[in-house]
Amino acid sequence: MSDIKRVYLFEEGNAAMRDLLGGKGANLAEMTNIGLPVPAGFTITTVACNEYSAIGRLPDGLMDEVTEKLHVIESKMGKRLGDPDNPLLVSVRSGAKFSMPGMMDTVLNLGLNEKSLHSLIRQTNNERFAYDANRRFIMMFSNIVLGLERKMFDEIFDEHKAQLRVKQDTELPVSSLKQICSEFLALVLRETGHGFPGDPMEQLKLAIEAVFRSWNNPRAITYREKENIPHNLGTAVNVQSMVFGNMGEDSGTGVAFTRNMATGEKVMYGEYLMNAQGEDVVAGVRTPVPIARLKEQSPQIYKQFDTIATSLEKHYRDAMDIEFTIEKGRLFMLQCRVGKRTAAAAVKIAVDMVSEGLISKDEAIHRVRPKDLDQLLHPQFDPNAKLDIFAKGLAASPGAAVGKAAFDADTAKVRGETEPVILVRPETTPDDIHGMLAAKGVLTARGGMTSHAAVVARGFGIPCVAGCEVLDVNLESRTITVGDVVIRDGDWISIDGSTGNVIQGKAPLVEALITKEFETLLGWADQLRRIGVRANADNPKDAAKAFEFGAEGIGLCRTEHMFFEKDRLPIVRDMILAENEAERRSALNKLLSVQQSDFEGIFAVMQGRPVTIRLIDPPLHEFLPRFEELLQEVVELRLVSTMTQGNALKSILKEKEQLLAAVEGMREQNPMLGLRGCRLSIVFPEIVEMQVRAILQAACKLAKAGQEVHPEIMIPLVGHVNELKLLRDQLEKVAKQVLAESDVKCDYKFGTMIEIPRAALTSDQIAEYAEFFSFGTNDLTQTTFGFSRDDAEGKFLQKYVEMGILPANPFEVLDQVGVGKLMRICVDQARKVRPNIKLGICGEHGGEPSSVAFCHSIGLDYVSCSPFRVPIARLAAAQANVEVAGTKDV
Amino acid sequence: MSDIKRVYLFEEGNAAMRDLLGGKGANLAEMTNIGLPVPAGFTITTVACNEYSAIGRLPDGLMDEVTEKLHVIESKMGKRLGDPDNPLLVSVRSGAKFSMPGMMDTVLNLGLNEKSLHSLIRQTNNERFAYDANRRFIMMFSNIVLGLERKMFDEIFDEHKAQLRVKQDTELPVSSLKQICSEFLALVLRETGHGFPGDPMEQLKLAIEAVFRSWNNPRAITYREKENIPHNLGTAVNVQSMVFGNMGEDSGTGVAFTRNMATGEKVMYGEYLMNAQGEDVVAGVRTPVPIARLKEQSPQIYKQFDTIATSLEKHYRDAMDIEFTIEKGRLFMLQCRVGKRTAAAAVKIAVDMVSEGLISKDEAIHRVRPKDLDQLLHPQFDPNAKLDIFAKGLAASPGAAVGKAAFDADTAKVRGETEPVILVRPETTPDDIHGMLAAKGVLTARGGMTSHAAVVARGFGIPCVAGCEVLDVNLESRTITVGDVVIRDGDWISIDGSTGNVIQGKAPLVEALITKEFETLLGWADQLRRIGVRANADNPKDAAKAFEFGAEGIGLCRTEHMFFEKDRLPIVRDMILAENEAERRSALNKLLSVQQSDFEGIFAVMQGRPVTIRLIDPPLHEFLPRFEELLQEVVELRLVSTMTQGNALKSILKEKEQLLAAVEGMREQNPMLGLRGCRLSIVFPEIVEMQVRAILQAACKLAKAGQEVHPEIMIPLVGHVNELKLLRDQLEKVAKQVLAESDVKCDYKFGTMIEIPRAALTSDQIAEYAEFFSFGTNDLTQTTFGFSRDDAEGKFLQKYVEMGILPANPFEVLDQVGVGKLMRICVDQARKVRPNIKLGICGEHGGEPSSVAFCHSIGLDYVSCSPFRVPIARLAAAQANVEVAGTKDV
Repeated sequence: MSDIKRVYLFEEGNAAMRDLLGGKGANLAEMTNIGLPVPAGFTITTVACNEYSAIGRLPDGLMDEVTEKLHVIESKMGKRLGDPDNPLLVSVRSGAKFSMPGMMDTVLNLGLNEKSLHSLIRQTNNERFAYDANRRFIMMFSNIVLGLERKMFDEIFDEHKAQLRVKQDTELPVSSLKQICSEFLALVLRETGHGFPGDPMEQLKLAIEAVFRSWNNPRAITYREKENIPHNLGTAVNVQSMVFGNMGEDSGTGVAFTRNMATGEKVMYGEYLMNAQGEDVVAGVRTPVPIARLKEQSPQIYKQFDTIATSLEKHYRDAMDIEFTIEKGRLFMLQCRVGKRTAAAAVKIAVDMVSEGLISKDEAIHRVRPKDLDQLLHPQFDPNAKLDIFAKGLAASPGAAVGKAAFDADTAKVRGETEPVILVRPETTPDDIHGMLAAKGVLTARGGMTSHAAVVARGFGIPCVAGCEVLDVNLESRTITVGDVVIRDGDWISIDGSTGNVIQGKAPLVEALITKEFETLLGWADQLRRIGVRANADNPKDAAKAFEFGAEGIGLCRTEHMFFEKDRLPIVRDMILAENEAERRSALNKLLSVQQSDFEGIFAVMQGRPVTIRLIDPPLHEFLPRFEELLQEVVELRLVSTMTQGNALKSILKEKEQLLAAVEGMREQNPMLGLRGCRLSIVFPEIVEMQVRAILQAACKLAKAGQEVHPEIMIPLVGHVNELKLLRDQLEKVAKQVLAESDVKCDYKFGTMIEIPRAALTSDQIAEYAEFFSFGTNDLTQTTFGFSRDDAEGKFLQKYVEMGILPANPFEVLDQVGVGKLMRICVDQARKVRPNIKLGICGEHGGEPSSVAFCHSIGLDYVSCSPFRVPIARLAAAQANVEVAGTKDV
Repeated sequence: MSDIKRVYLFEEGNAAMRDLLGGKGANLAEMTNIGLPVPAGFTITTVACNEYSAIGRLPDGLMDEVTEKLHVIESKMGKRLGDPDNPLLVSVRSGAKFSMPGMMDTVLNLGLNEKSLHSLIRQTNNERFAYDANRRFIMMFSNIVLGLERKMFDEIFDEHKAQLRVKQDTELPVSSLKQICSEFLALVLRETGHGFPGDPMEQLKLAIEAVFRSWNNPRAITYREKENIPHNLGTAVNVQSMVFGNMGEDSGTGVAFTRNMATGEKVMYGEYLMNAQGEDVVAGVRTPVPIARLKEQSPQIYKQFDTIATSLEKHYRDAMDIEFTIEKGRLFMLQCRVGKRTAAAAVKIAVDMVSEGLISKDEAIHRVRPKDLDQLLHPQFDPNAKLDIFAKGLAASPGAAVGKAAFDADTAKVRGETEPVILVRPETTPDDIHGMLAAKGVLTARGGMTSHAAVVARGFGIPCVAGCEVLDVNLESRTITVGDVVIRDGDWISIDGSTGNVIQGKAPLVEALITKEFETLLGWADQLRRIGVRANADNPKDAAKAFEFGAEGIGLCRTEHMFFEKDRLPIVRDMILAENEAERRSALNKLLSVQQSDFEGIFAVMQGRPVTIRLIDPPLHEFLPRFEELLQEVVELRLVSTMTQGNALKSILKEKEQLLAAVEGMREQNPMLGLRGCRLSIVFPEIVEMQVRAILQAACKLAKAGQEVHPEIMIPLVGHVNELKLLRDQLEKVAKQVLAESDVKCDYKFGTMIEIPRAALTSDQIAEYAEFFSFGTNDLTQTTFGFSRDDAEGKFLQKYVEMGILPANPFEVLDQVGVGKLMRICVDQARKVRPNIKLGICGEHGGEPSSVAFCHSIGLDYVSCSPFRVPIARLAAAQANVEVAGTKDV
């Protein structure tokens, strides 16, 4: 015998003991202690489960303790387990700290055997009920505890129904149920070689062992890995006296929520079924009725239930999910827990509860999971609709979209003016931008999370599913084929950029809706957070969206995205392919005016909030046609021209060959690690000189018109302090010159992106020349891990996450251990040299809640993310800054 | 007047005062103090120079101090500067701490003007000598101090020679020299607007200023940047009374080395010229004679000089470079410094001086620059030969090679059996290996320092010039064309893999020669170093070379290089393209036996020293044909097959299309950051399982035969501890199984390469599963800087070094500030967790002296480098461990 207490009566526990008693056990104890009608029972602890897992059998003395507590229950109920005259029946349920569908769930009616069955018939005077209870017990126990396949039992049952040509289980006569029970027992004997255990204490022991064993079944392990639940928590076992909802029309069972968990409305919500066990509700054999009907059917019980529900909400200070049973007119509470809810409901309930005085604002902001806000910001498919999903790609840009398939950008552009269109491409290029902008959504068969389609779509807030490799996109026949499914030009198609699902037909949409409560909650979040929130926006339209969502500035404006627009790309190409400086300067002059007007637009929209503008970053070949396509064209042209001898062809060939040579000259083995960022600017300073001029001319123009402007000029990809020093010197000259020309005062800053490990490691040197740092954690993650996102996501990253090598995709959730360590080193060193340096993050992690919390913890000044994630970041930032004691796990 | 002493008489200084007096001044002082005949003089300090640079004029009081010291000299010499009757003439020479050819050098005969000229004539009774001295002075002063172009003076001089039709300067009559002097003075007046300064003190002041000014002239700055000399050292100015070697046949001037600086032989070596000034020797107007002749010509002076030379060697404890002048039979020492020498001489002199008792072994190992040893280990072109260099590429694999050009691998292989061959290719592929092995050297037009040609050549110790982009290699005509030069198939060609030079014809070679002294010196280095030295070797041949050069083990054996060999590549391709596991296993079985025999060979050669074997690292597509070439073939085949309808063609097309699809499926955007290293092994574990089996089967076989074996199995590219943990678990199983099968004891270790920043940052976690770490500083440099070597070296790295953004190419010289910081973090964290972890480096930095010193300083256990750099590393390691006081700068 050990001196650890392993079994707790419900009256011995409380809601805070989730670790030891599991969620279900802790809440049963809590309800018991606040005086609610809970059938008597006890809980075997998770510690006992872990002992079982360690030694492979029940710990010594456990069953003695179980027997002892059982006696308490027996005396309370006036019945005894296995008593031939007055038998106690119990349920055995697993209950871990976190709800886990992968585990053994429930065995009902345990304690039945030949003798107690007949007592039950005698006591209830209901032979049908008793045999029905018995056949359910044998099947559940055999399946869950003895491990026999449920299918074999179902076959016997269905055969009887077929013989009698009945459809409903309830139509089977008692004689059949009797016969079925016998056949079940024979089946068990045949399959296991042993008879069905008749001794109720034996049944109980086996059931407890089965629950413990189920903690380590493969489904449970997989589930825990997926949900990041530690494997060492163990599960508790709840043993509770049975109450029956199927003892006649004065009995019943149901589930209710204290508020509407879809909308958050303060209305009790749920359903019940008279003369039924929970199993029947789940199996959908009969249709349950709304809880409101109980008021008419049984006003007293309804009133009792309503009082209990209200007191539970007050007690738990949250909206609850309650299971109950009515046995012959008596109400019993079987379970309660904090109710799962939609994001919309979570927001409304949190805000309502503050005005009801139930919770504080601090608590309210912890009641909503930041990442769930995404649902509220984009159109979604109706959660109740059945969707015809035929493919799944990468969830590249969130939101749902519905439209008619168009297979090229021009078609999408034309049709998009009159009807919704989804642009479908093998992959997109800068030439497709006009079509993307005209489409409701974009679907590509190739490319990763940083492919052109994905990046551009996220930038413009267009839903996008990218890299959907099962799609066979045929541009000639203008069809998508996946197995039997064929989508033709103009067919309806739906995509979900939040999940990656691709759906045939026109799926029903629910539009995004920013409610009053949502704004209230975010307002509180703003009061409660320390860290600032900015947005990444590349054009005035995005900036406006960011402003609307509450961004306090632009943390990243990628100037080159402006280069990709259709009217500008030819100028950019002229600049790149210029054969002398005069040609290059002429192209740059054209770009100067378009860039300046873009910046004017952004500054105007942001109304004086700071705007961080990153100078050109990608390698120049990204603006040129793809090498492989050009090569193919040239090879074909060469062959054809040798055969046909046409002169026109020859001159086209020559032109293409020259272009091919130029593109080949710029090709790189590893473009991510090549001539880009500040390296490009050091080799070709003209481009960034033009950009700085455009930024400051725009700023001065607005400043002259009386508007406040705060441009922050960001030099990307610095790895060595000398890169920054050199460029800053050059560009300060341009800036000063523009200011001198404009004769107006205008504040500006120079800083750099920290996206190269060496920059983080030598931040003390770099901080001397930078007024701000912004962590470019996309590239910093790539270089710190030494893998590129495009290559990793397709080839091994998913596998790494599935195998548990990585806890999450580090491009989505910041790797605090590795990349985070580098960030800490960087921050600490930089602040020593320049205490007031402004520090931010503009990688995609800036909108991911756990990463926002990390940025808060290392003392960054702000996070910056895509406009649609600004609300998420605001909430996450507040949660990071406000600790709430006893925040409940949902 | 300041209280800083700015002017030192020679008798006031000594050799240790190089910082203050410059190298020349310090040595003049030293010689003066040990009683050698040095013409009286003084030195103005480098501090004064820095004052000048700061304020832009001579510091107040400096000229007073100069005047004061000048008086001391005047009274010593019994002459006065500017004295019309008995004038003192002086030389003014710059002299920085380090010799700097970019600066102003010397003004001779300062003090001459109309009056002193006539005194000189009177005193010497040699009008010709005096006018000659005068015209030299005017020209030097005008050029160096007044900044006039020397060309203008030469034109006047040459015109006179042309008029008189004389060839030698000495043939000009006095009258011409007089006339020339007048014309020179007129030229100065015309060009500067002022007359030539006649006041000797004015001349002196201007000359001193000119020396100070020259410290910051562009040539000097460039030179300092190139040689990494700090800009704040400043230069000293030496003012010394003139002695004349051109006063007749009893006068002369010369330079001598106390030992032979080419071979190190202990024989005085040098040359002199009677009746001449130093300038004449330099100008090559007359041919000097060997110093040995002085013994006959002037036995007494020779004896005096020989005694001085010997005492200087003893005094300086090093072989010296001495300048002297004989004035009318009197010997004067004008300069002495430690003599520059070849690597061979440095080694011999150091070893000889130890046996002569002049220096200690500690000092001896500091007397040779490790990187110079390279000269001794590879064949070199005869340094005296005139080479017809027509192109320059990357110095990709050191050593010189001469052979007949062959334009494909098969030809090279066949011809290479009977005659020396240079393999010339646009670039090489794995298909070319047999040709490379048969060639004396490899020359490619494309590809960087990590191109296939470069890596393989270095691996096998074959000289290679890669990426020589000016070459137009035409495989059809089998020619190389560069401008007018055409090299045809079979023509002689020479390449220098240490410099990148490509030479037309058969350049004369000097074979490498490992002398007794060389071995002695390295033996001392081994006694004196703490850090171990291993070699990178991929096959038994390389391992044997490494063993011969004293490697204490193999630090990196790259298993995939074995895959590239011609007989193996098809098997590797079968393995990669296998459509099912059975096919893959069958290919792997074939590889198992070849790998095993490679390992057996290496273990046997290494005689029980540890061998670190890296499991497969590169992405699989490196073993497949190039995508672009395949694409081209397929496009052509498609076009032709649609036109011809041939069935044979169709089936070839189909096969090629399948191969293309397979290759395309494996293409990566950034192969360096893709599916390689341990990532590959996690996705395809069969390959590494085979490799571990091969390693341990080989080890067990040798162990059974009684040989000691210590395999160290290295898992590459780990970024997260879980990668290592998972693979180690899997591979330990294989290892244990092989040991169980073999029934023999064999020691082995598992470890990892640290080449990803995240691995270094989380080394405490990783060290738990690794018995050793080896820094892969090639990849670590790439990821820490965020640039790939292939892309950077072609596009911007050279420019970065030229512009001073980076102090050196970080792939050659370890970046101690950034990459080094990561290494320190890694070492500190890892040793906390596993104090006895074995730490090494196997990047190319392992053979670079400053990087070896760094590795020593952070406490690594060994460095590993290519076999030919092992001696360099041994010496560098000893230097790092042994501090020698007063080690002289050469």
